[in-house]
Order: sequence, then C-alpha cells, then structure tokens
Amino acid sequence: MTQADPAAHCHPENKLCMPEDARRRAARRLSIARGHLESIVRMLDEPDVYCVDVLRQIKAVQGALSGAGEVVLRGHLEAHVATAHERGDTLEMVEELMEALKYR
Amino acid sequence: MTQADPAAHCHPENKLCMPEDARRRAARRLSIARGHLESIVRMLDEPDVYCVDVLRQIKAVQGALSGAGEVVLRGHLEAHVATAHERGDTLEMVEELMEALKYR
Amino acid sequence: MTQADPAAHCHPENKLCMPEDARRRAARRLSIARGHLESIVRMLDEPDVYCVDVLRQIKAVQGALSGAGEVVLRGHLEAHVATAHERGDTLEMVEELMEALKYR
Amino acid sequence: MTQADPAAHCHPENKLCMPEDARRRAARRLSIARGHLESIVRMLDEPDVYCVDVLRQIKAVQGALSGAGEVVLRGHLEAHVATAHERGDTLEMVEELMEALKYR
Repeated sequence: MTQADPAAHCHPENKLCMPEDARRRAARRLSIARGHLESIVRMLDEPDVYCVDVLRQIKAVQGALSGAGEVVLRGHLEAHVATAHERGDTLEMVEELMEALKYR
Repeated sequence: MTQADPAAHCHPENKLCMPEDARRRAARRLSIARGHLESIVRMLDEPDVYCVDVLRQIKAVQGALSGAGEVVLRGHLEAHVATAHERGDTLEMVEELMEALKYR
Repeated sequence: MTQADPAAHCHPENKLCMPEDARRRAARRLSIARGHLESIVRMLDEPDVYCVDVLRQIKAVQGALSGAGEVVLRGHLEAHVATAHERGDTLEMVEELMEALKYR
Repeated sequence: MTQADPAAHCHPENKLCMPEDARRRAARRLSIARGHLESIVRMLDEPDVYCVDVLRQIKAVQGALSGAGEVVLRGHLEAHVATAHERGDTLEMVEELMEALKYR
C-alpha cells in the first residue's frame, strides 16, 4: 500500500499535525526568503536605489513564499484533507481550507 | 451520518463527476460573468470610454470568475479529495489539483 | 518625435479617452474570452463534467482577462499617466490607478 | 505648484532614483515582514504545528509584501512615470514597468 498512514500525522491528543517532510521543506524555503527580504531592506538603505529593481526583488520573494505555501498546501491535502471522509470531518476541513486560501 | 456519499459522485464507468449542486451554482455564476463581459465589449465600442473604467470592469469579472472557481474547488474537495484515501488515489488527486491551482 | 501626442487622447470636452489601438485590441481579446466562457457554461450542462477540467478552463479565461487588462493598462500608462506631470494632475491620476489595481 | 519636482528624483549622473519617502516607508514595511517571516520559521520548529496555521501566516506576509510593493509602485508612478513624456522615454518606462508587474 502506497498511501501514507493518516495516523502518522496525528498528535497524541488527536490533533492534526503537519507532515515532517513538508515542515522541513517549508522551513528551508522560508529561511531563504527571509534572507532575500533582508537583502532588499539593505538595498533600500542606498539613496540611489531604483524603484523597478525593488519591485522585481519583492516579486521574487513573493514567488518564494508562494512556493513555500504550495509545499504546505500539498502536505495538508495529502495528510489531512484526503483522509477527512474517514475521520468524518470533511465539511469542517474544507471550510477551514477555503477560508485560508481566500484572496490567495 | 452527515457526510456526503462519495459514490454519489461516481459515474457508472467509475469516473469522478462534479457534484450537481456545485455544477448548477458554477454555471449560474459563469453565465452572469459572461453577461458582464459582453457589456464590457459593448463599452469598448464607444470611442470615449476611459481606460480606468474598463480596468475596473475587467477586475469585477475576474472577481466573479474567482467566485465560480471557489464553488468548483469546494465541491471537488468535498466530493473527491476528502475521499481519496479511501479510494487509494491520494497522490494522483493531490498532484492533479496542485497543477490546476498553479498561478491561481 | 517618437512620443505619442497626448492631445490625441483628449476628447473635445477635455476628457481622457482610451487610445483607439488599445481599445480595439482589448475588445478583440475580451470577445474571445466571452466565447471561451460560453463554452464553459455549456460544459457545465453535462452531468459527467469533471471539477478539475472546469477549474482549468476558468483559469484559462482568467488568463485571457489578465491579458486584456494588460493591454488597457499599457495604453493608459502611455497615453495618460506618462503625461500627467504636464497636465498637472499626477496625484489624482496615480491615486485613481492604484485604486483600480488593488487586489489585482 | 503642487507637483513634485521630477528633478528631485534624479541622481547627478542622471539616473532615476526612488523618492526618499517611498524608500523609507517600503524599508519599514519590509522589516516588519521579515520579522513576521522569522516567526513563521520558528513556528515550523514545533513538531505539532498545523498546516492551515502556517498557510494563514504565509498569506499575512504576502499581504505585507504587497503593501510594500504598492508603496514602491506609487512612488515610481508619481516620480518617474508621470514625467516620462517630458523626458521623452515613455515607451521604455512603460515597457519596463509592465514587465515588472507581470504575474503580480
């Protein structure tokens, strides 16, 4: 059986937890985005920085955050949403996720 | 039991189909968006139309399409993704959905 | 002189109007998007339509609308924003545009 | 005269520079976003963090980056795009900006 065991993502107190692989990969990507963001803040110390260069850098960080968000979303769909019918909490899980995706 | 029966969304040939309620609500919203889009095309026949008014109208239609997309996504999560672990096709379902959400 | 004449986009009553080329190109693109949207509405008449296929089609129309919006925005920047300092209405023009771009 | 002096945003070597006020406000907003991003990275050290909480936090940082991007864009439109026709570089300025806004 190739399916992940949904129980593996359940805390002792029956709380849903993020799959460890997604957690590590998201953390790594967000750390890189943070470093990139720091370099933009330093860039803005220079009086002759050009607006469009700053816009491009901000866009790059936004792309990195979207990538991290995809890692988290994928892990959530696999570990928690795909098993919702078995647990019996489909409507709550979907409502919660739709709310979190709004304006994305 | 308050859970939807996943079998209800399966075609005789075992194909996943859109839940009827989501299908009707999405169709209604998209019909309204189509009418709105028609009125923008007519607006553009007027030589003195103003750019920013057109931008605002296009944005409104984009909002309507996002709303229709949310109806479809919610139905898909409830009827098909939440039951994926039971069917044993979690990885395929999640991969397909992540691909469809890309650049959203 | 390679600059467009800003006066060319001014109505007799001194109202700013959309450049004709942008107007025609935006209309053409929006007409195509309308046809695509019609085909999605028809697709939703079929009881065995699949959610992810509908999501993909909606995404394609959203891409087409973004393309039309870019045509309009480019024409507006060239014809009206780039000439704002000469007319003396920079702050109003920028405020109006930022408002229209919001949540884009 | 209420218009900003476009010359104020020109470097000795005739390079366009970011207006100082926009530069400071963007830096402040991006510093706050960086702190927020750091707190998400720390959150991901906890084995029982929940996916949807992480998604919400990432979305909040994306909102902060969009806000910083708006500050930069507004400054650019006022200081550089609105004066493009006078400088005679409208087409280049608009092309560059449209490219930077792409996929935004």
